Amino acid sequence: MRISPLIDRLIESLQALPGVGPKTATRTALHLLQYNRPGAVALASALTEAAENVQRCRTCRTLTESEQCAICANPRRDGHLLCVVESPSDIVAIELAGGFSGRYYVLHGRLSPIDGIGPDELGLIDLPTRVRDGGVREVILATNPTVEGEATAHFIKESLRDTGATVTRIAHGVPLGGELEYIDGGTIVHALRGRRTVE
Amino acid sequence: MRISPLIDRLIESLQALPGVGPKTATRTALHLLQYNRPGAVALASALTEAAENVQRCRTCRTLTESEQCAICANPRRDGHLLCVVESPSDIVAIELAGGFSGRYYVLHGRLSPIDGIGPDELGLIDLPTRVRDGGVREVILATNPTVEGEATAHFIKESLRDTGATVTRIAHGVPLGGELEYIDGGTIVHALRGRRTVE
Repeated sequence: MRISPLIDRLIESLQALPGVGPKTATRTALHLLQYNRPGAVALASALTEAAENVQRCRTCRTLTESEQCAICANPRRDGHLLCVVESPSDIVAIELAGGFSGRYYVLHGRLSPIDGIGPDELGLIDLPTRVRDGGVREVILATNPTVEGEATAHFIKESLRDTGATVTRIAHGVPLGGELEYIDGGTIVHALRGRRTVE
Repeated sequence: MRISPLIDRLIESLQALPGVGPKTATRTALHLLQYNRPGAVALASALTEAAENVQRCRTCRTLTESEQCAICANPRRDGHLLCVVESPSDIVAIELAGGFSGRYYVLHGRLSPIDGIGPDELGLIDLPTRVRDGGVREVILATNPTVEGEATAHFIKESLRDTGATVTRIAHGVPLGGELEYIDGGTIVHALRGRRTVE
């Protein structure tokens, strides 16, 4: 339904948000205009500022408006441990889980020749230098357990062969609270292969 | 988790959107910055334009940036029928359902003395004049079937007593596809009270 040119344009633009379709966009647009214009104006300014100024951390490639992100700039993080992830949201997930005190390296994707994404786009050319010069002792590969994620992990393992660093892969298996009967076969195969002696 | 001042501010601002909490906001912010900056910039401009220019239709009080909304300006809509709704999104719902060719009047709320919302805030003072001068023959009350919505409908019915217009209320009952055993008692009472002779 057409409401008015400016409201229609707002509804259209809101659909740039992931998971927002025409219905949610309409409800959101009318809600903001009816009840929360200061919120709409603040959101517009936050979007503009972030879109203009946020770039990549020159050390780990995550998103930040500074030269270096807060984690890379924090001297208390363990520089011997480097966790390689596909995207900045993976860092958020790991940080919220707690328990990891090392540093990160963000690929912004995974190897996918069909989409023209090779080692260069993912910063993999610079990774061996980063590992050698940064005194990294262990590189933890936390790419996702998809075909591309596994291929990317394999490529990284090979490219770090001469750096002297240990390369490890995060465990894949039954998630906590998961029940075997509801879990897919691929995960069960991984869980069996990754079995450990009970101590 | 703190990411960077600008990204944190964006995550905070995104929570002005209805139904968006910290988790969705974080995912949305990182998605926009990683994959869709043009979308973020377009959304910022659409928000600013709409927040600055959208006001109320001088005839029906719905949201529009023009003097009159598209429905009020459309000479083919039936001026004898006036449907009173609580909010602009109710117009969207009725228009999408189809079948209504009259005009609207938007209250932007319902009577709620406890929140300081009286007849004046809802444009109810001007409604009798609108009905009389506009040659309205039937006023359909489509406020929601809540305590305040019913009180508002009752107030409007009284205030239109001298206008000569018929005042009707939309039917409340079992929704299409609804099954009696899953429907609340209030709706069933309404459905029984509103029963009609089968022809």
